[in-house]
Amino acid sequence: MLWEVISMNGSEVRSKAELAKSASTVLNRLTTAQKNIALGTMANALRQEQQSIITANAEDLERGRQQGTPSSLLDRLALNPERIEAMAEGLEQIISLPDPVGDVLETIDRPNGLRIDKIRVPLGVIGIIYEARPNVTVDAAGLCLKTGNAVVLRGGSAALSSNRQIIEVLHRALASTDIPVDALQIIEDPNRSSVDEMLKLNGLLDVVIPRGGRSLIQNVVTNATVPVIETGAGVCHTYIDETAELTMATEISLNAKVQRPSVCNSMETLIIHEAFAALHLPHLAEQFRKANVELRGCEPTLAIVPWATAATSEDYGTEYNDYILNVKIVNNIQEALSHIAQYGTQHSECIVTEDKTQADYFIQEVDAAAVYHNASTRFTDGFEFGYGAEIGISTQKLHARGPMGLPSLTSTKYRIYGNGQIRR
Amino acid sequence: MLWEVISMNGSEVRSKAELAKSASTVLNRLTTAQKNIALGTMANALRQEQQSIITANAEDLERGRQQGTPSSLLDRLALNPERIEAMAEGLEQIISLPDPVGDVLETIDRPNGLRIDKIRVPLGVIGIIYEARPNVTVDAAGLCLKTGNAVVLRGGSAALSSNRQIIEVLHRALASTDIPVDALQIIEDPNRSSVDEMLKLNGLLDVVIPRGGRSLIQNVVTNATVPVIETGAGVCHTYIDETAELTMATEISLNAKVQRPSVCNSMETLIIHEAFAALHLPHLAEQFRKANVELRGCEPTLAIVPWATAATSEDYGTEYNDYILNVKIVNNIQEALSHIAQYGTQHSECIVTEDKTQADYFIQEVDAAAVYHNASTRFTDGFEFGYGAEIGISTQKLHARGPMGLPSLTSTKYRIYGNGQIRR
Repeated sequence: MLWEVISMNGSEVRSKAELAKSASTVLNRLTTAQKNIALGTMANALRQEQQSIITANAEDLERGRQQGTPSSLLDRLALNPERIEAMAEGLEQIISLPDPVGDVLETIDRPNGLRIDKIRVPLGVIGIIYEARPNVTVDAAGLCLKTGNAVVLRGGSAALSSNRQIIEVLHRALASTDIPVDALQIIEDPNRSSVDEMLKLNGLLDVVIPRGGRSLIQNVVTNATVPVIETGAGVCHTYIDETAELTMATEISLNAKVQRPSVCNSMETLIIHEAFAALHLPHLAEQFRKANVELRGCEPTLAIVPWATAATSEDYGTEYNDYILNVKIVNNIQEALSHIAQYGTQHSECIVTEDKTQADYFIQEVDAAAVYHNASTRFTDGFEFGYGAEIGISTQKLHARGPMGLPSLTSTKYRIYGNGQIRR
Repeated sequence: MLWEVISMNGSEVRSKAELAKSASTVLNRLTTAQKNIALGTMANALRQEQQSIITANAEDLERGRQQGTPSSLLDRLALNPERIEAMAEGLEQIISLPDPVGDVLETIDRPNGLRIDKIRVPLGVIGIIYEARPNVTVDAAGLCLKTGNAVVLRGGSAALSSNRQIIEVLHRALASTDIPVDALQIIEDPNRSSVDEMLKLNGLLDVVIPRGGRSLIQNVVTNATVPVIETGAGVCHTYIDETAELTMATEISLNAKVQRPSVCNSMETLIIHEAFAALHLPHLAEQFRKANVELRGCEPTLAIVPWATAATSEDYGTEYNDYILNVKIVNNIQEALSHIAQYGTQHSECIVTEDKTQADYFIQEVDAAAVYHNASTRFTDGFEFGYGAEIGISTQKLHARGPMGLPSLTSTKYRIYGNGQIRR
């Protein structure tokens, strides 16, 4: 394999990052039109060469089957003409988004005559570390290139053949455009050591964004010396207050759990005011049972829902991403807030209540990227927020928090015009 | 000493960070008026109890003298009534600045009726790691508290007595205000291990900001697992282009070097177009000689300025913070840009030219927090930019870049109002 040849001669990771950094200085100069034309060329290439990608994907699927990969993971990995068309359309959607690079965010005219503009610039080189889904390869490449950033991708080894072929197709496409081919790099070394090396490339990578499960993110956060944008892990709660309206509470909590349990903005724990629980938990529990959701509850919950099992402290901290729900009954909103502060991951939290004062208090007190009054936590998403794209959902507080659209992939720079000013 | 008692019973660093985190949830709720009143009380307390601070400072100075600390460092450490008055006035200036917390940065009305507000919120708990100057203790405390953040300070051991007394005074002041005393913490353990422990307090500290020399910053960047805002190191250049006006070029480059050589935005290397150098370097060099600046140059420089010594590659990468200047003669702007890309720290860079096209090209191509046309790099500063305060100058690209005012100490949060919306 190619990466073996490179490893023998030096580090694949470092040499590709160096190529990306060098290309980033060219990318930095391109106009929006030049970048959009390149994205369009990439989209067309995916369509025209879809067969080669499907063939490569079959290798990954076959290897996965031999290794006993669960069918749900194989499903996520599998590509077909429709999924490749969706990738191409994704690139075309990115074309239609406004380019944030060059935007003037602030203009300051100083008394001494200095004119200071704060402008958006690309971050430089972005590292993306992700798991099996090959559509991330195209999506991340498109978002980074649109914002004038070079990108070093490191996908999961389960999708290596697919990713390699996708990048080969995109490289051929870029060769006829103004975006340098080197601006798009993929690390082929399937060993974990290639991830570790990426995390230490200070001076070459300006940021690393992990996209994947908790252990992947934890590894990146713990070991990176380059700046990281932490994404994803979501232990999200819905709190049904005393005054909540039954139908709304039922619809919102069901939607938050079962509309798509596998994603980070789905609910893991339902917190219920004791007064509401006494009246309505039997009905609510029945709706979850019908939706095939297993319930794990606190003692008061078990007294009302005999078929639920006891929830442990570990359960309350777990992102199930599955048809399992913790239930916790509380005496008041304060207890709900304490539970969320203890077990939440500062992702998305919701209160269902008819009392606006309680809602405002909840929104003020909860420390999370997105706090909802009377709406499903499932809306925490760049597309649902109207950003038109999403590179991930940041669960940290620096740089970006919540759904990250194109501006999250930029930095700023001050340009200052003078006519001889010196400091006294 | 107190920290020894605490270390015996557990970790001083962790327990103080836990107190700060707990206090941050109270601070988060305070109004601007409540915070400003507390800052005013702190300022008055510094004035009223200045003698106790000067007495404690004398201990630090005496210990420093015994340890043979250079007099320039003792000067930075020394406190007197004027310097304490300046600290108090610094707090009063922070009172007058607008409070960014609660600002609505973006409002999105979605077709499904969801109303999304992106609002500024405090970061939470900020760790500041700094060196000897005790004024940073007051300044950092004021900026963090104004923005609703709790703060864990870890100053240099040389200023331990001064810092401990300052905090004691400020704690007594806070006790009569709405800001919890625990929101302001100082680590007293003088061992390096207390810094290392701070850097790993994920979940307690939301960010660590190092303020100090290169080795301090390098240690923080390398070892931190909590997010870091890298500040400070500045190898800044001034490039004198072919068409530069002689008087302006002389004034700007002299100012950038000698107005205050010890700070990060001062110039370390002067790059000169060969045509300008041939005509004017003798005059320019003479001005630097009169200002007691040692010159280290490339070969062509040495041919023109015989008293200069040869600059090594290491010299070009050194932040002297002293009366030493590297000189590099180039054939064209491209060479100047390459030199800056190789040796610069992405802090502040300047071009002196009468050619606006060259200036715009330089500003576009240089990757730095601040890029100047015809003005001294010494202006890279929160006060000079009109921000009224500065927690540091970020030399990284994430979250904040360049002089950091109060908004740099905030994060954001989405609050979303619905009336039963669920995701389809």
